[in-house]
Amino acid sequence: MPLVRISLKRGDPARRRAVADGVHRALVETVGVPPDDRFQVITSHDEDLVYDPNYLGIRRSDDVVLIQIFLSTGRTVDQKKALYRSIADRLAADPGLRPEDVFVNLVETTRADWSFGNGIAQYADAPPPHLVAAPAA
Amino acid sequence: MPLVRISLKRGDPARRRAVADGVHRALVETVGVPPDDRFQVITSHDEDLVYDPNYLGIRRSDDVVLIQIFLSTGRTVDQKKALYRSIADRLAADPGLRPEDVFVNLVETTRADWSFGNGIAQYADAPPPHLVAAPAA
Amino acid sequence: MPLVRISLKRGDPARRRAVADGVHRALVETVGVPPDDRFQVITSHDEDLVYDPNYLGIRRSDDVVLIQIFLSTGRTVDQKKALYRSIADRLAADPGLRPEDVFVNLVETTRADWSFGNGIAQYADAPPPHLVAAPAA
Repeated sequence: MPLVRISLKRGDPARRRAVADGVHRALVETVGVPPDDRFQVITSHDEDLVYDPNYLGIRRSDDVVLIQIFLSTGRTVDQKKALYRSIADRLAADPGLRPEDVFVNLVETTRADWSFGNGIAQYADAPPPHLVAAPAA
Repeated sequence: MPLVRISLKRGDPARRRAVADGVHRALVETVGVPPDDRFQVITSHDEDLVYDPNYLGIRRSDDVVLIQIFLSTGRTVDQKKALYRSIADRLAADPGLRPEDVFVNLVETTRADWSFGNGIAQYADAPPPHLVAAPAA
Repeated sequence: MPLVRISLKRGDPARRRAVADGVHRALVETVGVPPDDRFQVITSHDEDLVYDPNYLGIRRSDDVVLIQIFLSTGRTVDQKKALYRSIADRLAADPGLRPEDVFVNLVETTRADWSFGNGIAQYADAPPPHLVAAPAA
């Protein structure tokens, strides 16, 4: 279900892929997203990605990554905190981002707001398991 | 009012235009969007559009289109279902997409969250007709 | 906190920068965003930015700018109106946009929906000053 938008400065594809992989794994591990529920759009920018280099005393660099995740409501604040922690840790491990450079914003929607194909609102009538219990995997 | 973001793999402009046209017509027909209330941003991607080829058992291909629609609250679940059905049907007719390749996500906002120009919140004080009754057209 | 997405027709970088600057200053002045809380993604488009040239009787041109602002809840309708007014006025002053060409959409989130770096939800436990009082600056 999550639709993820990742915006970063222009760089090599391997780095972008590592970022996308890390964000997805963090979603799977901390907020119960199924491993195969992955939909991401990555965009690269030059001067058209603007960030403050010190907001809240956090020292950001041109390696900054802006990650926006659209997902259904139902996650607790503690789950969201675990998600941020996990994304920063994973991106530190690969591709080696400084935690200061990892910016995340969540946008919540209802379950009826998703169609995964075939013109059907798959989640509208039956809540998916990962929104009512821990994931089986 | 809707602001529509359409993300797809790189392809020819005619195909992109057909997708954008179909999404807009579906919004007009199923959830009462005025025909001239059209604002869309389309982006084309190569490896930077990531999708799972089988989530929920739906077989997606590189023709996949991720459609995200920002709109005001007020639509029922049944209207949303009709919207998904209509988008899939229209894109199957033109440009010939498989329904499996049509992914839709809605994000709802309040009426005060829109300014259509001139620095005014046109919907803040008076609900537009299409949010309180069937469209005249 | 705001994450701002600005979409416009392809043009020169100075114009894009002026638009981004004006939007940010309007946020600081009207809804209490701290001056250094600035995160923006700008994208340029050719035929892939679609707009209606007359919706609600507002005459738009190819100079149209679609501005989408993700921010925390807590602003009043009056603050939102002041924001739209300020954005239109500032972009009229520089880079000289017609107010008809300034389209704005807000998308609200909760305070727990943001991590500004270091894997921490900085706003989750303590509301930032600008969401509970006028900014100090």
